[in-house]
Amino acid sequence: MLVYLNGNFVSDEAATISVLDRGFIFGDGVYEVWRVVRGRLFESERHLRRLQHGLGELRITQPEIADAKQLSRIAERLLSENGLQQGDATLYVEITRGTAPRAHAFPPADTAPTVFAMAKSFTLPHDVRAAGAQVITTPDVRWLRCDIKTVQLLPNVMAKQKAVEAGALEAVFIRDGIVTEGSHTNVFGVIDGEVRTHPQNQFVLPGVTRDVVLEVAAASGVRVREEAMRAADLERATELFLTGTTTDVMPIVRIDGRVVGSGTPGPIARRLYEGLRERLEA
Amino acid sequence: MLVYLNGNFVSDEAATISVLDRGFIFGDGVYEVWRVVRGRLFESERHLRRLQHGLGELRITQPEIADAKQLSRIAERLLSENGLQQGDATLYVEITRGTAPRAHAFPPADTAPTVFAMAKSFTLPHDVRAAGAQVITTPDVRWLRCDIKTVQLLPNVMAKQKAVEAGALEAVFIRDGIVTEGSHTNVFGVIDGEVRTHPQNQFVLPGVTRDVVLEVAAASGVRVREEAMRAADLERATELFLTGTTTDVMPIVRIDGRVVGSGTPGPIARRLYEGLRERLEA
Repeated sequence: MLVYLNGNFVSDEAATISVLDRGFIFGDGVYEVWRVVRGRLFESERHLRRLQHGLGELRITQPEIADAKQLSRIAERLLSENGLQQGDATLYVEITRGTAPRAHAFPPADTAPTVFAMAKSFTLPHDVRAAGAQVITTPDVRWLRCDIKTVQLLPNVMAKQKAVEAGALEAVFIRDGIVTEGSHTNVFGVIDGEVRTHPQNQFVLPGVTRDVVLEVAAASGVRVREEAMRAADLERATELFLTGTTTDVMPIVRIDGRVVGSGTPGPIARRLYEGLRERLEA
Repeated sequence: MLVYLNGNFVSDEAATISVLDRGFIFGDGVYEVWRVVRGRLFESERHLRRLQHGLGELRITQPEIADAKQLSRIAERLLSENGLQQGDATLYVEITRGTAPRAHAFPPADTAPTVFAMAKSFTLPHDVRAAGAQVITTPDVRWLRCDIKTVQLLPNVMAKQKAVEAGALEAVFIRDGIVTEGSHTNVFGVIDGEVRTHPQNQFVLPGVTRDVVLEVAAASGVRVREEAMRAADLERATELFLTGTTTDVMPIVRIDGRVVGSGTPGPIARRLYEGLRERLEA
């Protein structure tokens, strides 16, 4: 696999960074994942703005890849040289505060950020989507800046592993009795005929697919309220579903072993998935 | 500088890891820092137990460096080959869940952890200690497993940088009106003649120097209560001080610009520092 690292295109085996990279030492970096459909970056600008926002919040110097034209150039080469111009793929970009002697405070201002990008194919989980997914709930022990897409992902790792071991697709975080989001997805429910999801604040990532799905809902006349569900609301939701860059819209049919609604993917999740697919294929 | 990486002793310039290391991608790892005095690891066993505990909590396979004899062997070589057998130094060890294709859940069980170790000299901040340090307070936005010494350190990085820009030595975290700890230190106060510090739970790191200082206090007849101070208590504390592996006992003379107590290092901080020095030099 050909990847991009600090201005060079190299094989993934040759793509190495210093042990003193602040990504490795402090988790001091941000990342972004684009959905790629037939070689085209879906909602390219929105993902890029989120990346730029994260760099700004952490005061990491914007490297050239954070420029739309440069991103496009790098993505095109990764996609073409890895044979990813057809089908579904992802583009991953990570930017850290660079390499410097270990000290918590920022390194000298001229320290170059580390920039890594890779593109990979992925297979849509059609079978899981058709049957609906199982999820578990787990306490949300993450930090209070979940709105920034950083590599502070250890709690997400532990939660996802817990899900996998329970035979579930995803872990849904509950903080102080409130449903926030999944370990790598946003969470939606249908309660009293209304679609609900956590509002955008420091407790959830501003999901690009989340926002597209909200637009699809508005365009389809589906009522939506950006107000968090309480954990207790999960029991009376007639539908639950996840959204994400590689998750699209994924119906949930069981949560902590309990059946959700009819136990099969619901009509609103299906309608929103179809609307999202149209946007992806456009 | 000669460092240790995955079984080999190499120069720091040659010490590189894959961009797919889970430390870099997810912050999925733990670390430990030992104080080294004249070539000897201070409280070696306590630091090692904390490292082993962290590996256990995260279910990362214990590599050979987590064995006392192997740790000692690796430390001795790093200290001798880097000329650190006299004076003050630190030994840093980081262990991540290893290198694997990016996916949140754990990689296959046979994935080898990444193990990195380095030793460095450091200079005791005698002048700062003699004058007393300035600190600031900042909201504690960290995750809820601060008891594990992981590389989820981005909030610590941001807090320390804020301190540095304010001309302060350290940032003291306040969570829900409670003083938890510093960005890389534990925090103590003297209130009504009694030493106070946050109890050991998920909100603070179980500091080795913290525990030694508590032992020194007990042996010196200094009254101690492991009960968190409220932010409001900071104004009536007659002394405040930090403890840490390279901080020893550091008196605080200003917090958010306000003078603490007499504005000079207090007698209890001095006595505890002297007791700690005796242990360090023993």
